[in-house]
Amino acid sequence: MPLRKSDGPSFFDLLTKQAALLVSAVDLLGSMLGSLPLERVALRDKLHEIEHEADELNHALTKKLNMSFVTPFDREDLGFLAGRLDDCMDYMDEAGDLIVLYGLDDIPEDVATLLAAQINVLVRCADQTATALPGLKSPLDLRDYWVEINRLENEGDKAYRHTLTALFDSSLDPVTIIKLKDVVQVLERGTDAFEDLANGIEAIAVKES
Amino acid sequence: MPLRKSDGPSFFDLLTKQAALLVSAVDLLGSMLGSLPLERVALRDKLHEIEHEADELNHALTKKLNMSFVTPFDREDLGFLAGRLDDCMDYMDEAGDLIVLYGLDDIPEDVATLLAAQINVLVRCADQTATALPGLKSPLDLRDYWVEINRLENEGDKAYRHTLTALFDSSLDPVTIIKLKDVVQVLERGTDAFEDLANGIEAIAVKES
Amino acid sequence: MPLRKSDGPSFFDLLTKQAALLVSAVDLLGSMLGSLPLERVALRDKLHEIEHEADELNHALTKKLNMSFVTPFDREDLGFLAGRLDDCMDYMDEAGDLIVLYGLDDIPEDVATLLAAQINVLVRCADQTATALPGLKSPLDLRDYWVEINRLENEGDKAYRHTLTALFDSSLDPVTIIKLKDVVQVLERGTDAFEDLANGIEAIAVKES
Repeated sequence: MPLRKSDGPSFFDLLTKQAALLVSAVDLLGSMLGSLPLERVALRDKLHEIEHEADELNHALTKKLNMSFVTPFDREDLGFLAGRLDDCMDYMDEAGDLIVLYGLDDIPEDVATLLAAQINVLVRCADQTATALPGLKSPLDLRDYWVEINRLENEGDKAYRHTLTALFDSSLDPVTIIKLKDVVQVLERGTDAFEDLANGIEAIAVKES
Repeated sequence: MPLRKSDGPSFFDLLTKQAALLVSAVDLLGSMLGSLPLERVALRDKLHEIEHEADELNHALTKKLNMSFVTPFDREDLGFLAGRLDDCMDYMDEAGDLIVLYGLDDIPEDVATLLAAQINVLVRCADQTATALPGLKSPLDLRDYWVEINRLENEGDKAYRHTLTALFDSSLDPVTIIKLKDVVQVLERGTDAFEDLANGIEAIAVKES
Repeated sequence: MPLRKSDGPSFFDLLTKQAALLVSAVDLLGSMLGSLPLERVALRDKLHEIEHEADELNHALTKKLNMSFVTPFDREDLGFLAGRLDDCMDYMDEAGDLIVLYGLDDIPEDVATLLAAQINVLVRCADQTATALPGLKSPLDLRDYWVEINRLENEGDKAYRHTLTALFDSSLDPVTIIKLKDVVQVLERGTDAFEDLANGIEAIAVKES
């Protein structure tokens, strides 16, 4: 039975809420780096809860898509945006998981500083995204946002390369290198996911203009 | 020239056959773990044949999609299901390949037991899927199936984490760890692919209801 | 405002140009293997420029797709082809990046020879693709091309397996193995991307016939 347009939260509300959760998720991820093992497990559990909440929003959006006659943008575009927001969250969740799973307790300070720089890029990506999404109805006005995300992705890419080089130049044992490389790569994929989202919004803006 | 609806196997037949092949594939994969190197190559070759057979079914379905005026579900949904069945098969095939390619002959018993637990999850995923697919015409009736697959995916995720932790805590040499980590991750992706398939069927059920 | 069909380069022109850039990219990648560190950075920078140029073509095609009423093939098929051409380029660019980033200066000769064999497969894939694309208007006539790419992908797969086995059988230190494995896998994914493109063209041919 198709919903009336006014039933429940709008597509824009659902996407905006998904974006807001990304800010909480990346904050938790940042806190994990500097914390003690036990705290870290608690932070990871909280990150899982947020990921779960975002998942529910994503399912609600898919359901609404399938039940609506009229959608504010093309059906597949709305699905694409929700999917990319979901990707961003999944990478943060995965990074938190790996940090706990791998028991990365004694990260050398120079590598930790570089990891923090990568996470800092993610913090700014999430902030930009959460600030931009409430304006999604007029995607052309979000130009500054997608330009800034593309700039951040470049910065993130440089941070990623620096971390990787430092890792390989370190005298860490190979197994620790394997573990840290996994974390570093998941963070990099997270930044890419934010860029994919921004590019998707740009493409919608072009199409709607 | 568009086919008449009655020409050749139906979409449901093709998908059901693809699912049945997954049961054979994962059985072969399970046999590979406990077998001697030479037997293992023979089992891998058989696994390749099955993968090839599944590929033909997938191609036949794509061709039929392109040539049919009327399809029982949305065109892209049928393509999605065939593609996910193909992913499941590809991951099993890749796991078999890696086991032969990497010459993993002396897997320590505790790691082997954990790998077997991961494969056991895949066995049950394949069984559930092959049992469910003949009922695809009424996707809403497959609720038990998709709930069970989501439960199995959680179980598989735990098995994956246990194996990974055991691997990193082992005193295996780093190169062996790299190899086994590849196998463990491909098995985990296989479980995820079964979940993607089940979620796709759930989404169709919601849409058709 | 929708463009008239005659405005700017055609869809076929844009795809053909993307394919031509792949030939230049893989040539640069091949030159990187045998060159000194400093030359290598210069070659990588040139590869980046070409990747950027291809990106612009891809964006132009997306924009044109969004602004055209009439498209020579289904809209999503044209988008798919441009996306796969983009994937081919991205993998070559990533391979070049890794070679510089990882400072792979002393690759043992047997491994270097095997890497060169992998790149040689990519050279032939790019050549075949660039030769075929100008004939895309009549995709059924491109049968020889897609058969040959599938053959090359098999050859590439064998080269990939040989390189990986040689790598693991070498007495290289684990960290160097990790680095080289990354390069070898990106090259393999590049070959797969060429196959995905060829299979996409085959599917269009079947559909249009």
